Amino acid sequence: MVDKPAPDATRRSEKSRRAIYAAALALVAEVGYPKTTVEAIAARAGVGKQTIYRWWSSKADVLLEAFLDLAGQTAQAAGQEPYTIPDTGDLAADLKAVLRATVDELCDPRFEAPARALTAEGVVNEQVGREFVTKLLEPQLQLYVARLRSAQDTGDVRADVDPRIALELFVSPLAQRWLQRTAPISYAYTDTLVDYALYGLAPR
Amino acid sequence: MVDKPAPDATRRSEKSRRAIYAAALALVAEVGYPKTTVEAIAARAGVGKQTIYRWWSSKADVLLEAFLDLAGQTAQAAGQEPYTIPDTGDLAADLKAVLRATVDELCDPRFEAPARALTAEGVVNEQVGREFVTKLLEPQLQLYVARLRSAQDTGDVRADVDPRIALELFVSPLAQRWLQRTAPISYAYTDTLVDYALYGLAPR
Repeated sequence: MVDKPAPDATRRSEKSRRAIYAAALALVAEVGYPKTTVEAIAARAGVGKQTIYRWWSSKADVLLEAFLDLAGQTAQAAGQEPYTIPDTGDLAADLKAVLRATVDELCDPRFEAPARALTAEGVVNEQVGREFVTKLLEPQLQLYVARLRSAQDTGDVRADVDPRIALELFVSPLAQRWLQRTAPISYAYTDTLVDYALYGLAPR
Repeated sequence: MVDKPAPDATRRSEKSRRAIYAAALALVAEVGYPKTTVEAIAARAGVGKQTIYRWWSSKADVLLEAFLDLAGQTAQAAGQEPYTIPDTGDLAADLKAVLRATVDELCDPRFEAPARALTAEGVVNEQVGREFVTKLLEPQLQLYVARLRSAQDTGDVRADVDPRIALELFVSPLAQRWLQRTAPISYAYTDTLVDYALYGLAPR
């Protein structure tokens, strides 16, 4: 909601930006990263190629921003603040809630096809992979680092644990099941990952 | 070493099979899965296309078998039995040894390029992904299941733990770091994963 009507030019820019994001995500999902070109994105969005180059320097830039925007929208549609992890004082519950929301996102077809296309390209194309990690994945992982540090302050996680490694015990299994289709994903599965990671496999 | 000389035909077949494996792995690393064709593999291996179709039904078949063969050879070159996990009675030490060998394998350039190409294809191509998992990945993961079951028998892993999920706490983080280049991999890293997974992040 805006309380003042946007000037025509701003409204037109916003509309173009949305059309470009949608075109970029649709194209990469349909034809893969290598065949997605700035020309094709422009044609599909109904804008000139120069409009895209005015705002972004490459197709990788457009795609990464389109993707960030989509992730933010998906979170908002699910009633969550994008890019936060709750801190209710119950670490297991907080991690389970975030991972359940991630399961929903990974199973959302609007998200799945472009996410697979970008990730696959990152596996074989080091530059795209590193941009994807720096701009999209690592900032999300750092939210887990912050939540685990807070749990170290309250004594719920051992002080000698490295939070950047620890988060991988529950994040990476979900990522691998989804990416490589090694087994199905579900809330019960991610809940189990959190319990195993926090309490360990060895008897206590 | 063979104690009887192989008949000429067998020796020639074995030589062709090796040439085909090498050609398939080199091609997929160079041009990616979609552009790797049976024709190109045959040309590079110096055999007729029909020689390939006599032994394999598709390029996916050739590649998966070439890959299995390479993994077996890499393990043997490192002085390990391929496809076994030691059971010395010390679970942490056994898991750390296998993961250290996996780090070596993932950093071996002969392995890395074709493994990335096949994995990337599996991310966007469900059929290739499922074949890759069924024939290559899952049989390796089942070795961890067996080792964890044996640890449940000796009381080193809780009886209520699902070994198929548990193994992911140390296998998937390594896989994700390697595939998505989220952070470097090392022996110290995989050793830490095993300790965190076995003893948990929460204080004991």
